[in-house]
Amino acid sequence: MRQYFSAISLILLTACFSGIGAAAHENEVTLPAVRAHKPIQVISPEISKDGRVTFRLFAPEAGGVKVVGDFIENESEEIVRQGYDMKQNADGVWSFTTKQLKPELYYYRFNVDGLLITDPSNIYRIRDVATWSSIFIISGSEGDAGWLYSVNKVSHGNIAKVWYESPTLGLSRRMTVYTPAGYENSSRKYPVLYLLHGMGGDEDAWATLGRAAQILDNLIAGGKAEPMIVVMPNGNPNTSAAPGEWSGAQQYQPVFGRNDFGDSKATMEASFPDIINYVEKHYRVLNDRRHRAVCGLSMGGGHTFWATVHYPEAFGYIGLFSASVWLPGRQFPTIDQMERYKPLREGLAGLFATKPLLYWIAIGEDDFLYKNNKVLRAYLDSHDYPYEYYENSGGHVWRNWRIYLGLFAQKIFK
Amino acid sequence: MRQYFSAISLILLTACFSGIGAAAHENEVTLPAVRAHKPIQVISPEISKDGRVTFRLFAPEAGGVKVVGDFIENESEEIVRQGYDMKQNADGVWSFTTKQLKPELYYYRFNVDGLLITDPSNIYRIRDVATWSSIFIISGSEGDAGWLYSVNKVSHGNIAKVWYESPTLGLSRRMTVYTPAGYENSSRKYPVLYLLHGMGGDEDAWATLGRAAQILDNLIAGGKAEPMIVVMPNGNPNTSAAPGEWSGAQQYQPVFGRNDFGDSKATMEASFPDIINYVEKHYRVLNDRRHRAVCGLSMGGGHTFWATVHYPEAFGYIGLFSASVWLPGRQFPTIDQMERYKPLREGLAGLFATKPLLYWIAIGEDDFLYKNNKVLRAYLDSHDYPYEYYENSGGHVWRNWRIYLGLFAQKIFK
Repeated sequence: MRQYFSAISLILLTACFSGIGAAAHENEVTLPAVRAHKPIQVISPEISKDGRVTFRLFAPEAGGVKVVGDFIENESEEIVRQGYDMKQNADGVWSFTTKQLKPELYYYRFNVDGLLITDPSNIYRIRDVATWSSIFIISGSEGDAGWLYSVNKVSHGNIAKVWYESPTLGLSRRMTVYTPAGYENSSRKYPVLYLLHGMGGDEDAWATLGRAAQILDNLIAGGKAEPMIVVMPNGNPNTSAAPGEWSGAQQYQPVFGRNDFGDSKATMEASFPDIINYVEKHYRVLNDRRHRAVCGLSMGGGHTFWATVHYPEAFGYIGLFSASVWLPGRQFPTIDQMERYKPLREGLAGLFATKPLLYWIAIGEDDFLYKNNKVLRAYLDSHDYPYEYYENSGGHVWRNWRIYLGLFAQKIFK
Repeated sequence: MRQYFSAISLILLTACFSGIGAAAHENEVTLPAVRAHKPIQVISPEISKDGRVTFRLFAPEAGGVKVVGDFIENESEEIVRQGYDMKQNADGVWSFTTKQLKPELYYYRFNVDGLLITDPSNIYRIRDVATWSSIFIISGSEGDAGWLYSVNKVSHGNIAKVWYESPTLGLSRRMTVYTPAGYENSSRKYPVLYLLHGMGGDEDAWATLGRAAQILDNLIAGGKAEPMIVVMPNGNPNTSAAPGEWSGAQQYQPVFGRNDFGDSKATMEASFPDIINYVEKHYRVLNDRRHRAVCGLSMGGGHTFWATVHYPEAFGYIGLFSASVWLPGRQFPTIDQMERYKPLREGLAGLFATKPLLYWIAIGEDDFLYKNNKVLRAYLDSHDYPYEYYENSGGHVWRNWRIYLGLFAQKIFK
């Protein structure tokens, strides 16, 4: 009898799929142009097999359109900052084709007579603080950055948005938790990576901008990283969650470098045990330092630095990505001489006495925090505190943080 | 010692928060206008206490800007379709202020000389098939639609993106699962609502466009709905997941009314047991029909119709929202006369013989499927199959489906 129904429902569903009334579905309104142009549906971005990308925008009345984004390299400062000029055809469609791009995830926006917009023809876009950008991926071959950030034909982990209580901060808080493929169907216990975002970010940042799920899926499937749980908490101790996700910031528009939510009861790093306690109570985890790692970018690198000084026994693997760590440099009395830094130097001494399995510092040579990390390394060197150092090109950008996560994830729990 | 560290880290984090290098953070590029205009940061939308909304857009070179969206009511057909004209000031900022709007979640876009864009000053936007719209909420008092869709000061459930195996379809598939506040910290078993999307949608649609988590959070916190798990599967049986979430549609741009993924091994409704089996194995659920409900919008209403005919014992509560159900009307031989409809009429007879606890049909008077649902009701009436019927104004739109979910959720598991 089931077969009969399937046949009939296929017939009827075909009718349903045939597009009757289709126009009524999307947002109810149909939207002709302000002026008398018939809108043209364009394909954008179009990625050729050899990695060239064509951007297109239908904007018949525009005086000038540029495309700007981090795919622009080896060009003049002006082009890097302002973008490439697009050319308009007779139908009002502007277009520009790049040279061959190397495998990567790229951002871009259009500049239409000074108005910066995402690409209306591309559904893929991500938000960084207050700015939405369109994105595309040049997915190369296995192991390439573009491949690592792509959704490949591998088993996928699950992503959950989880509310937990933080008694230290006096808040219900939201975090993102990645459980690796297989977690739901096993009784195995897993190690946990705590992955921290930067200033202006929130518990969604690593899962969107950071492609954390794709990176872990691909590394785990390839046997390059151990299956692990990844916990991405919110690092702003005076908020509960990302904008729009809690009642205190229901329609809040974030501004980079500003935080309008007043004082917190405690610091992010002081509240870290609340997070660990929740995770270790609710997930099947290995709960010793050999199976706990922490890393973070920028402010989250600072949180990592301080949390591991606070709780030297907690984490075996420690990663600082473009870390915001502010130690007095040569021009100041050093940490070892100043009384106020006594707790810090004792804390670091205590941390390194536990012999961390990995203390990993990564930064790009153009990062505005490069010098800070140099001071930190000098301090660690002066005490023979062992660490690994990774330096690459580039600045204080997600492109680098994705690279660092990919590298760090391969070094831990082994 | 912990107190010392907190004090020091606060000092150092203050430095970190002071905005040094802040400009480097967002997408690396700074973006001056194509022409020589100094960009002006505007606030948009700005919602007054009495519910009037001001939209603003900095577009100094534009010839004409309109704002269009579903907040426009009681206006000429032209304004409803094309939007309100915005006025430009001397700084190049266009603006328009609405009259008082009733509590609701609204969509809007700007039309800049024929170019349709989301509002660059508003981080809140959602995608419907291929179209992104900016959104805002007029949140009224408790019980209002706007309040129901808001993140209020209540306990929040968790949202997970979960991969499961569908042997019937031969695919790994992704679904969204809402677990109510308290689920993680109890041993209680919960009823389950299976909530299905429409054509062009995916497993993300009810959680974004449908505000399912907010609706459930608010109804449960107010004691108006029973705490329940809500499972939102993907209703396209030839795909694994939403665009961008599976390797088969890594950078796929969806087109409304089209589906490029070929034939499926079976129908969505035939594969329903795979979903139920996964959920009942992995979650603490009450697994009888008194604790299983299913509802869906449009195509998902069709899936609900057929799944409950397929599996008459499975669901006690059944909801059809603007359902895509195509039965022969009066001009054709009726279901009762045609041999080919024998399985359907026997299936419906079997379903209603089980005495469903609720068979709920909801539709708007302007819905293009209104007539289809009238035929369905006539058939049910002619056999004295009991159902409840809810009719309101409006068409085939998410605004109605959110209303229907809010109503249906209050009727089930009681």
